[in-house]
Amino acid sequence: MGIADELAKQQRAVSIAEFFERNRHLLGFDNKKKALLTVVKEAVDNSLDACEEAKILPQITVELIHMGEDRYRVIIEDNGPGIVQEHIGRVFAKLLYGSKFHSQRQQRGQQGIGISAACLYAQLTTGRPAKITSKVEGKKARYCELRLDTKTNEPQLLAEREVDWDCEHGVRIELDLEAQYQGGSQSVDAYIKQTAIVNPHATIIYTNPKAEQLILTRVTQELPPQAKEIKPHPHGIEIGVMQKMLENTEHTTMQQFLMNDFCRVGAGTAKEILSNALIQVKAQPKSLRAQDIEQLMKGIAKTKIIAPPTDCIVPIGEELLEAGLQKEVTAEFYCSKTRTPEIYHGIPFVVEVALAYGGTQRGDNAVNVLRFANKVPLLYQMRSGAVYKSIVETGWRTYGLNQSTNQLPVGPLTIAVHLASVWPPFTSEAKEALANYPQIIKEIKLALQECGRKLGRYVNKKKKARAEQERVSVFEAYTPVCAELLSEITGESKVRIEQHMTQMLVKNKEFIMKNKGIPDGHEKEN
Amino acid sequence: MGIADELAKQQRAVSIAEFFERNRHLLGFDNKKKALLTVVKEAVDNSLDACEEAKILPQITVELIHMGEDRYRVIIEDNGPGIVQEHIGRVFAKLLYGSKFHSQRQQRGQQGIGISAACLYAQLTTGRPAKITSKVEGKKARYCELRLDTKTNEPQLLAEREVDWDCEHGVRIELDLEAQYQGGSQSVDAYIKQTAIVNPHATIIYTNPKAEQLILTRVTQELPPQAKEIKPHPHGIEIGVMQKMLENTEHTTMQQFLMNDFCRVGAGTAKEILSNALIQVKAQPKSLRAQDIEQLMKGIAKTKIIAPPTDCIVPIGEELLEAGLQKEVTAEFYCSKTRTPEIYHGIPFVVEVALAYGGTQRGDNAVNVLRFANKVPLLYQMRSGAVYKSIVETGWRTYGLNQSTNQLPVGPLTIAVHLASVWPPFTSEAKEALANYPQIIKEIKLALQECGRKLGRYVNKKKKARAEQERVSVFEAYTPVCAELLSEITGESKVRIEQHMTQMLVKNKEFIMKNKGIPDGHEKEN
Repeated sequence: MGIADELAKQQRAVSIAEFFERNRHLLGFDNKKKALLTVVKEAVDNSLDACEEAKILPQITVELIHMGEDRYRVIIEDNGPGIVQEHIGRVFAKLLYGSKFHSQRQQRGQQGIGISAACLYAQLTTGRPAKITSKVEGKKARYCELRLDTKTNEPQLLAEREVDWDCEHGVRIELDLEAQYQGGSQSVDAYIKQTAIVNPHATIIYTNPKAEQLILTRVTQELPPQAKEIKPHPHGIEIGVMQKMLENTEHTTMQQFLMNDFCRVGAGTAKEILSNALIQVKAQPKSLRAQDIEQLMKGIAKTKIIAPPTDCIVPIGEELLEAGLQKEVTAEFYCSKTRTPEIYHGIPFVVEVALAYGGTQRGDNAVNVLRFANKVPLLYQMRSGAVYKSIVETGWRTYGLNQSTNQLPVGPLTIAVHLASVWPPFTSEAKEALANYPQIIKEIKLALQECGRKLGRYVNKKKKARAEQERVSVFEAYTPVCAELLSEITGESKVRIEQHMTQMLVKNKEFIMKNKGIPDGHEKEN
Repeated sequence: MGIADELAKQQRAVSIAEFFERNRHLLGFDNKKKALLTVVKEAVDNSLDACEEAKILPQITVELIHMGEDRYRVIIEDNGPGIVQEHIGRVFAKLLYGSKFHSQRQQRGQQGIGISAACLYAQLTTGRPAKITSKVEGKKARYCELRLDTKTNEPQLLAEREVDWDCEHGVRIELDLEAQYQGGSQSVDAYIKQTAIVNPHATIIYTNPKAEQLILTRVTQELPPQAKEIKPHPHGIEIGVMQKMLENTEHTTMQQFLMNDFCRVGAGTAKEILSNALIQVKAQPKSLRAQDIEQLMKGIAKTKIIAPPTDCIVPIGEELLEAGLQKEVTAEFYCSKTRTPEIYHGIPFVVEVALAYGGTQRGDNAVNVLRFANKVPLLYQMRSGAVYKSIVETGWRTYGLNQSTNQLPVGPLTIAVHLASVWPPFTSEAKEALANYPQIIKEIKLALQECGRKLGRYVNKKKKARAEQERVSVFEAYTPVCAELLSEITGESKVRIEQHMTQMLVKNKEFIMKNKGIPDGHEKEN
């Protein structure tokens, strides 16, 4: 038998679960500290998504219990709609299974990997099954113990029974895993606090392993508007995807196909595309050959089509983003900007930026950066993403901060950047940083500049005012000497002269403060 | 119907191909320039692996043809063993299919994603199928046109026939894709040159889109030794993997299981593990309950077991690595170090470092870094990997270079780092950088230090010699004046005195050069 045959015998399919089992760092399980964060993040993100979809004001309980050595128990409970019995296994113990991948709408979750990866990690490191309780309204609660069979990427049900659970609906997840608990900017604590900033409609009750409880109460009773689903826009489609859509469409004429499987294509636009492509309106989508499809792509490129609708994305809004930042950072000046939606690869997105300056923040360090995508805080890989690139490439010296070339500016400033999109492009499955798409970087920079200009006006006013004040102070220091001299010359009482001079100085200061806008510690520009 | 039921209706499985179709940047297809490199890299890596496995001295032809606008045709031909007919479809048009994932041995490829992803990218961007010709020794060549059905992750055969191909065996791949050709350190050109450095047994014939041909002839007729396959080492196994191995073993007693499914476990070690774990030698692997498995893990941890064998990894070797570097970089001093194998997570690995100093290299720039993993050059994400971290955290000032804290050193130096391992931990599926595992960083640093010390001796000698030389030169400048003075005092002829002094100086210089080791431009320390 030849070598080619021998090699052929070794060929095998790899299950996606085996793949991620070995490449767990791709999913955010590089080390024990990050693993703890990733597990909490995946569960909380799912809870927030489910509540939003079911129009429920979320209340989420997160509890971390130290079980000794490197073992932690993570318990997460929500008041979401629950998961119907038949799906529990696949939602928690099958990778690439979920409702979000095929829907064109802004959501926290994307591809049906996260929570199953968390269960898989727990299973790998402690051998313990995931314990899930789910209650759907009007039904009894179900309790399951689950494992993921990595050879097949299918769930194994180890136990299942009805249980009593004193709530209307919701899901409870209990996982034992190898982990490490630590504070700091990449901790579960930071994640929980930042999640509250961008989800002002959620109440989160968090108990850390030291049994300290943090209750973050919702600040609005209003649910955020729901993101609508959209169909793909013709200008964002690649030829390979078009081929697939043509094969799978249920419509029998090209005109119907274009009008129904895309957004922003009416009868007129469809006709124009087809005439530009030299394809008949009644041609069957499935009958198009390779060269016809190339013609079709050229036809689409030639045709003007209105930009996609943007109700598929829901920004946080300037007011709420700024309010959220005020909760977290004690500053003296805040401002924010929500840009109008833009498009990359046919996918709509919105960039929002908020700044908080001064106050209790240290002035001799690099600025503090908070990054969010679809209302989820991003805590890792700061330097490798679009947000970092946009900030270091913005000229902050114009706005009164110190900055070396290609470095973060230095000063008492917090910069929060939020990207809302149907499909935020992350640099890895662990969803830690936004990929460097030029269109996204451009929008972030524009938002930073708009806020930066407001900041610059404030910082420069403050600097000028301080300079004037210093001049006045110098004069003040000489008051007694001047008074004595004047007293000698005029014979007037030294004390009276000094009083008079001081009164003048005070008036002068008030005048400066009024006209140069010295901050009173609560000023807010908008 | 409740909201939970409605949500359940949207739940669907995502095909791995759909997942990567949308997340192509995870596989190295972020942009058109990188896409071209990735396609060439995946094909050439596969060719080198196949030739190595079949004990064939590789000859690989790479041709890039510009087809107009952003379209390029990539043709790669090798003299490997070929692929048997039944497997061609799945090798080139099914993700996660291959022979390498389940073998514990050093290889370039890993998970059966790369070349299928390349074909998928071509199909997405140009709609054209992959054209594959394969010839197995003694059979007629087969030609196929392939597409990957992303909904199912299965190959579609569009055409297939016997063809005449004037060679004994090999594979030819032809792909049309959207790409961009550019020179520079991240180009196909750089990849080809660096591949030749670390694969001195390969001949590569490369034609770029300008029709310029580069022929890199093999410098050794000797095949590198073949890496042997190994079984997992007990100390590198996690509890979740142990569970799976216990379920899937064909052995019926625990002793047999430990002896046969792991490396470095003989009868004695197996008994010791089991006695430490309080498990009977004849217990059935499949009968172990969760708490028994936890006991087993503790038993393994308690037992001393020899380190895994290291013939599963094959370093390049100090001599060949240095010779490779000499081909690429014109320097005046070279040195290299191959460390002894080490273990992380039960996986053996070897670090090799080579340095090239001086010569035509510029001295006012950051040093040039070449990174390799399993004989594959890594061209992207330099700053996010273990190699960069190791270099910037090494104190290069001791070795005579300039360096700011946490920056690359500055000087006329090229640093080449190679990691050979059964499973190099990459930071992404695109295999661009090595993840920051502490054990790997430690080994790289030690290798850098060993080479660094040799470099330091050379650089410091050179500096001292230069200082002496300068002193002599100063004296030389005064020779005529001294000679005149001495001539006046002694009455001796000025010319004779000057001649005499010059002779003395020359001797002195020779003496300095001999003792301080002034380089003659070709010196090589080893």
